[in-house]
Amino acid sequence: MSRYWSPQVHQLSPYIPGEQPRIPNLIKLNTNESPYGPSPRVMEAIQAANNETLRLYPDPQATALKAALAQYAGLSAEEVFVGNGSDEVLALAFQAFFQGRTEPLLFPEITYSFYPVYCQLYQVAYKMLPLRTDFTLPLTDYQQPNGGIIFPNPNAPTGIAVSLAEISRLLEHNQDSVVIVDEAYVDFGTESAASLIQRFPNLLVTQTFSKSWALAGLRVGFALGHPDLIEALNRVKDSFNSYPLDRLALVGAQAALEDLPYYQALNQKIIASREQLSQDLTALGFEVLPSKANFVFARHPHHSAADLADQLRQNAILVRHFKHPKIDQFLRITLGNEEQNQKLIKTLAHLVTTDR
Amino acid sequence: MSRYWSPQVHQLSPYIPGEQPRIPNLIKLNTNESPYGPSPRVMEAIQAANNETLRLYPDPQATALKAALAQYAGLSAEEVFVGNGSDEVLALAFQAFFQGRTEPLLFPEITYSFYPVYCQLYQVAYKMLPLRTDFTLPLTDYQQPNGGIIFPNPNAPTGIAVSLAEISRLLEHNQDSVVIVDEAYVDFGTESAASLIQRFPNLLVTQTFSKSWALAGLRVGFALGHPDLIEALNRVKDSFNSYPLDRLALVGAQAALEDLPYYQALNQKIIASREQLSQDLTALGFEVLPSKANFVFARHPHHSAADLADQLRQNAILVRHFKHPKIDQFLRITLGNEEQNQKLIKTLAHLVTTDR
Repeated sequence: MSRYWSPQVHQLSPYIPGEQPRIPNLIKLNTNESPYGPSPRVMEAIQAANNETLRLYPDPQATALKAALAQYAGLSAEEVFVGNGSDEVLALAFQAFFQGRTEPLLFPEITYSFYPVYCQLYQVAYKMLPLRTDFTLPLTDYQQPNGGIIFPNPNAPTGIAVSLAEISRLLEHNQDSVVIVDEAYVDFGTESAASLIQRFPNLLVTQTFSKSWALAGLRVGFALGHPDLIEALNRVKDSFNSYPLDRLALVGAQAALEDLPYYQALNQKIIASREQLSQDLTALGFEVLPSKANFVFARHPHHSAADLADQLRQNAILVRHFKHPKIDQFLRITLGNEEQNQKLIKTLAHLVTTDR
Repeated sequence: MSRYWSPQVHQLSPYIPGEQPRIPNLIKLNTNESPYGPSPRVMEAIQAANNETLRLYPDPQATALKAALAQYAGLSAEEVFVGNGSDEVLALAFQAFFQGRTEPLLFPEITYSFYPVYCQLYQVAYKMLPLRTDFTLPLTDYQQPNGGIIFPNPNAPTGIAVSLAEISRLLEHNQDSVVIVDEAYVDFGTESAASLIQRFPNLLVTQTFSKSWALAGLRVGFALGHPDLIEALNRVKDSFNSYPLDRLALVGAQAALEDLPYYQALNQKIIASREQLSQDLTALGFEVLPSKANFVFARHPHHSAADLADQLRQNAILVRHFKHPKIDQFLRITLGNEEQNQKLIKTLAHLVTTDR
């Protein structure tokens, strides 16, 4: 606390990201990174950079990356926005669309915990709507007065997806405020809402290179939507920071987009290992929510999730546990590679059979 | 314009950065980049990155880079903040210290044109104080009620510096609000105010790797100040984007800090060429302000700056011209390498002698 702080800084409870500890031989299943590296073309593109490219400012419009993303998404470059990770894209979107509204922003009670933090930062009124008891998202509840709607699809940390038909119905009934579908995990088996952009000028879809593209270290996210929405994002971004993407991130993300077969194979591998891990956890007595993400959300009827997380940590396996009372019996487990997943199952088998 | 935009988005007039055109053989003297590359160690550090480092999130606290900066600045890591270029650092500082104040923020009428843009974005009231007729900054004028003070030292686009004694006197008379000294160009011959941080808990000093470290392409900036100020910046940053610096930017900036001799030699070279260019311009009849930056600000008594800028552009030389009436007779010319500076002088010599 300090008298030099702006009034609202005192009120902030910042988002706490998963740990990035430096423990040797750690099996790190806590922050939903890809267990595999990105396309080799990414490293090639980065290594092709030279001193000349380091000393010059990046393209503030990220023209080449936007063009590549437009082609990837089947949209025009005017329908694409890029930012420093989808967290930055979301923050700018809260400013561009939700700040200063009379009606509250609506989002799920159990969801990405950065949303209420953005609301504090930009003083956006919000209302959290409960999930169903099976943790599915009842989108019909969102047909009520609002200053905007945001939800991840699939949702985090449950991993459960809603259908394109449900999103389409919501948009038909909600045309006066912006609806953001946060698709950080969409590539692991959910249909993207990007196909609805032509019909709904109030739909913004956000995605990231951190998960399915295996580039969390590069910080690149993007948004797709009607050119009017993209223009608002550009106005806010250009009033904040002209060049949030450095030259290496720009060329790296572009190179990743040029190797779609690698990316598709990567996603198939993750999906297959998710089905395997879900089966294995179920065999150990866990209840596993039907995940469409690169993580599973699971609870055991006889074991405290907090205790299991601690015991896994003692075995150099890091998973994520949230203290929210409605989900504090769950572990969120990022999919590792095959060896890591087997090690996890072996360790959990030991814990849940011997430790009652 | 769109009904989906937040009310304040309509009011924004975003900052317009200097062009980054792709013209072959262009002599680019418009955005104050270094004409020389960074230390070779930077590229080595970047090339040492592998897929493993790309797939994992960066350290959200940037611990290693902060430690290196603390050592460089003779401060503790708790007195250091890092961000995506000093533009991001400044934006977060406007939120952390200036937003919601009753009294206006004070800054010079002629200065970095991003300041009023941040004020619009965060709805900060401001008051611009004129420079003296010789374009020097009268810091004593800033001893008046305010919600904060910000100025670059040296100032941009004039290049003129104020002394540490003047800054110290201002701080003695202004202890109730935060004073930001924006030292983007400090390394080209101005004393840093970082040495005053122990005495004044309301002083924040910002610097960048984009100019003297020749790393504009990497997007790294930092702030130095009392731990209470740094904590406010962290709270805002962690409510906005956990990881604004990617892994390559982190290792690149660290590598640059490990090669101080290279950086010192680079700055000496720029200073020497600035003195030479100023002489050469004076010999052509230009009035050249006494610059302490990596650019010069010059006007010719008989030639319109706008015309000269156009004619230089026709000769594939890009300089910056500002339309503000008090400085629209000036050209801001970034120092190039020796060959580029000579080409500039030769071209200008032709323009000012034949073109009256």
